[in-house]
Amino acid sequence: MDNVLPLRKKDFSFEDEIRELTDLCKEDLVSVNTIILDKLDSNVPLVHEVGKYLILSGGKRLRPLLTVSSFHMTRNGTSEIENKMNHIGLSAAVEFIHTATLLHDDVIDESKQRRGKPTANEKWKNKTSVLVGDFLFSRAFQLMTKYGNTETLKILADTSVVISEGEVLELVNDKNLEINENIYFEVVNAKTASLFSAACQVGSISGLGTEAEVNALKSFGTNFGMTFQLIDDAIDYSSNKKILGKNTGDDFKEGKITLPIILAYGRSNDKEKKFWERVISDLNQNDGDFEMALEIINKYQCIEDTLTRANHFSNVAVDSVDIFKDNIYKEKLVSLVTKSVSRIY
Amino acid sequence: MDNVLPLRKKDFSFEDEIRELTDLCKEDLVSVNTIILDKLDSNVPLVHEVGKYLILSGGKRLRPLLTVSSFHMTRNGTSEIENKMNHIGLSAAVEFIHTATLLHDDVIDESKQRRGKPTANEKWKNKTSVLVGDFLFSRAFQLMTKYGNTETLKILADTSVVISEGEVLELVNDKNLEINENIYFEVVNAKTASLFSAACQVGSISGLGTEAEVNALKSFGTNFGMTFQLIDDAIDYSSNKKILGKNTGDDFKEGKITLPIILAYGRSNDKEKKFWERVISDLNQNDGDFEMALEIINKYQCIEDTLTRANHFSNVAVDSVDIFKDNIYKEKLVSLVTKSVSRIY
Repeated sequence: MDNVLPLRKKDFSFEDEIRELTDLCKEDLVSVNTIILDKLDSNVPLVHEVGKYLILSGGKRLRPLLTVSSFHMTRNGTSEIENKMNHIGLSAAVEFIHTATLLHDDVIDESKQRRGKPTANEKWKNKTSVLVGDFLFSRAFQLMTKYGNTETLKILADTSVVISEGEVLELVNDKNLEINENIYFEVVNAKTASLFSAACQVGSISGLGTEAEVNALKSFGTNFGMTFQLIDDAIDYSSNKKILGKNTGDDFKEGKITLPIILAYGRSNDKEKKFWERVISDLNQNDGDFEMALEIINKYQCIEDTLTRANHFSNVAVDSVDIFKDNIYKEKLVSLVTKSVSRIY
Repeated sequence: MDNVLPLRKKDFSFEDEIRELTDLCKEDLVSVNTIILDKLDSNVPLVHEVGKYLILSGGKRLRPLLTVSSFHMTRNGTSEIENKMNHIGLSAAVEFIHTATLLHDDVIDESKQRRGKPTANEKWKNKTSVLVGDFLFSRAFQLMTKYGNTETLKILADTSVVISEGEVLELVNDKNLEINENIYFEVVNAKTASLFSAACQVGSISGLGTEAEVNALKSFGTNFGMTFQLIDDAIDYSSNKKILGKNTGDDFKEGKITLPIILAYGRSNDKEKKFWERVISDLNQNDGDFEMALEIINKYQCIEDTLTRANHFSNVAVDSVDIFKDNIYKEKLVSLVTKSVSRIY
């Protein structure tokens, strides 16, 4: 695929970029982890156990990283911040909201594995996942109440509403091959991009950014989120066996409707359409079906087109932060988005 | 049982008392319902449909009633309130939190009926209930962000944490006959009393009550909540077939551990203990088992003792509001608690 898109594999991977940015924000992220650990505590041992299992299972902490980076982007080493803990507490809140949605997501999708380990619903049953998700969600609001202001509280409360509506919109369209690209983008925006965006906004507001700066990072977050999810969708049908703990073919096995499938179904002939209906809508899959799916997807260049869409969003993300003077955080955030696209190669 | 406890059946029922207080708070409750309807709206039609189904299904609006009454108790017709909408918005938030927990509760308990209608999980499946619960919960936080202040936000966020921990504590002790009375009270306090208490607190804070007034109503709410739940537990084993939409024997059928069962199990002989283990722990029930359960419960006076506990809490609730000068709201709140105990007869 290297000759289809202008992006080329470089020495640095997406994971390397995350690591670099994490190192840059190290001190803050240590504080975020301290708050997370402190707030996972509960008088009910099972709550603590399940919360810890997922939240300490080696996630990338991508969202807290966005909050902390956005804080430093707007702060830019100069402004005086009254409360240096706000962006830390809000980072932890964002990660708690994210983890709560993962717990509920895995119940909805009946997922058995996440990050190479059994999901919480596999290990403790659905009921526990639902309730511990509620706990983490409530904890997030406790943190917001403590570290937020009117503006950041509103952003995170609104985002939570958007996320849950997005989840229902996805559920309503479950296994519906005729879902159009626009509705799909709406789901991705609600489920992924909105929290990326909120993470950037609350960080930059805590850093006392100007309205233009906050809006720039809001746009950066939204478009990075869209990029991230579309690449995630494409990876599922890529030839690269294992990227970031995700196995090729997972979405397919679950009959999940993602952009490669939407594009492929729209372009398929009658016989191919029947194939998709059987394997996705009816979830009736046999040996060799995944290979057949790949064949049709490649025949109609659906991965290339998914990447073209992802590139569109990553370009908008990069352009969004143009208004900031060059600084190390800006450089790293731009590399992060750029590398998130190239991680499929 | 009339000769066991000092309470006697009077002309007025609990439902009549609720109706009286509702009439007294009518104007405010119309506003609360308006906000509820407005905030149930969603771009995703299914969210709106499910939310409406439960929240408009004829619930008593007991919690908003507490918020509104507490507001008027502290306001007492005199103080100048800057924002007359705060207690309305917070009442709606409290009802949304309550409804969200009902949706998740019914998933956890695998309940099929609520208020004489199929539960949302029966009608739309568990997945929808989990997600719409998340939506309502997020909406509650949106409302809190808009109508709350630092203090009321903290109370409601803390209460949400307590509720979810209580739910897990109950789940962990599911069908465990050896759970002690204290843990059971902890569960009831977390699952029911904490939100009754929060409802009273946010109402009285919105009414600019003094610290002593807010604390009085906090105690009133907690103890009314404990009373309410214990009576609810007792009703399930009462001879009165249908009270407030609840059918006798529902808890038994689900193998739910409530105070009458905890008391009965502790007092049972070996043969009776084996019975409880079969019907509750193993949920292996045959015809005639409910009647046998009633026989053992009555043999050891477990309903009477449950009512004695309920009376303790209702007495504390009534005494809590002593500090208020006599007024119509105080009179009605006291009658409400008193009648909540006598509704079993």
